[in-house]
Amino acid sequence: MLSDKITVIGFDADDTLWVNETYFVETEHRLCQLLSPYADSATVSSALFRTEIQNMPLYGYGIKAYILSIIETAIKVSDGKIPPAVLQQIITLGKEQLRRPIVLLPGVEETLAALQGKYKLIIATKGDLLDQEQKLIRSGLEHYFHHVEIMSNKTEKEYRKLLQHLDIQPEQFLMIGNSIKSDILPPLRLGCHAAYVPFETTWLHETETLPAGHPRVSEFRQLEQILPFLLQND
Amino acid sequence: MLSDKITVIGFDADDTLWVNETYFVETEHRLCQLLSPYADSATVSSALFRTEIQNMPLYGYGIKAYILSIIETAIKVSDGKIPPAVLQQIITLGKEQLRRPIVLLPGVEETLAALQGKYKLIIATKGDLLDQEQKLIRSGLEHYFHHVEIMSNKTEKEYRKLLQHLDIQPEQFLMIGNSIKSDILPPLRLGCHAAYVPFETTWLHETETLPAGHPRVSEFRQLEQILPFLLQND
Repeated sequence: MLSDKITVIGFDADDTLWVNETYFVETEHRLCQLLSPYADSATVSSALFRTEIQNMPLYGYGIKAYILSIIETAIKVSDGKIPPAVLQQIITLGKEQLRRPIVLLPGVEETLAALQGKYKLIIATKGDLLDQEQKLIRSGLEHYFHHVEIMSNKTEKEYRKLLQHLDIQPEQFLMIGNSIKSDILPPLRLGCHAAYVPFETTWLHETETLPAGHPRVSEFRQLEQILPFLLQND
Repeated sequence: MLSDKITVIGFDADDTLWVNETYFVETEHRLCQLLSPYADSATVSSALFRTEIQNMPLYGYGIKAYILSIIETAIKVSDGKIPPAVLQQIITLGKEQLRRPIVLLPGVEETLAALQGKYKLIIATKGDLLDQEQKLIRSGLEHYFHHVEIMSNKTEKEYRKLLQHLDIQPEQFLMIGNSIKSDILPPLRLGCHAAYVPFETTWLHETETLPAGHPRVSEFRQLEQILPFLLQND
């Protein structure tokens, strides 16, 4: 049962409102094909993961960071032998990913429509600001949200800033998302509420386990299933 | 004379609070050296500018966008002949730029200290969120600001969103910055106040002329010179 103190609901965007990780997996698959003359897929994937983690403190999240890390990985894995034309193909892969159509997850529009006007709805997401803004516009969901909060990371520190910026107490905030590490654990630790809606694919960097029996977190197979708990006073 | 209705002051960050464009110019200079076997500096610079403008709708602003555009330009200008090792050097140039120490502009700290507590001070800037947050932390100025607003662009549309997000009327907002195109003209058109503090170098994309005799804009040679106008009731 969710608290009646909740006034603001934060939605993660990627893989909570729309498909995202699937496209990263596809881009990585095409990268492995492009690099197959130099290394097998497992080598490429683990080198890419290492490069991404190394670059994270400097680049942060998002597709531009991802493509820069891919280029670096391609040069490293090919021992500097990769033709620049292939690197141009990688840049094009990144641009294609930035232009992918938005595929909403099941029940998203219905959920937002039902909650609008009853709570302040915001998007709280990592990634590139422009990319996330453009995805929101292309999604047709923009009018449901008060505003978008782009966070450089999703640890307690950034959620604390978010609460301060929203000028609310922790118990007034519910965060909904697909990443236990980023959307669930930090808000819980601060005293907020959290709802976990898993997505089929989770990036290795984001995998974590849901705390068992915690009073302020619930898991839902689909976003819409949260409605009975949030609209109980209707 | 500035209005006594002002309650929130937005500061542009790059080249208003600290040196920035100078580093882009230096990076571009080193790029021209790296590409000198393939093209002269003028050719490289104009090709880079064209690539940046083309990529802007997709990449937005910031160093990651800049480095991706540089890599694309290097491949193009060298007709695909640039060695991957040189592209790695370009990636390293970008990382070095992200790690540059923060050099505050004259009078910045004194101005912020004098205004703190009398106005809500925010940063309103383009660029990469993580990069801007890290620069703010390294600058030691973080405690002066209520929060940072990263804007995907600085046109009327984004300033309108900013005012809505701040929940204030246009006449309550003063924007201070070094770009007439991004910091001065759009807020003026919305009915806000603006203060123009020019920096020695302005990116070609940002050059514009200050409107003559406008009642809501002033020009200051240094940031501190604004203080007598904002503290007149002390």
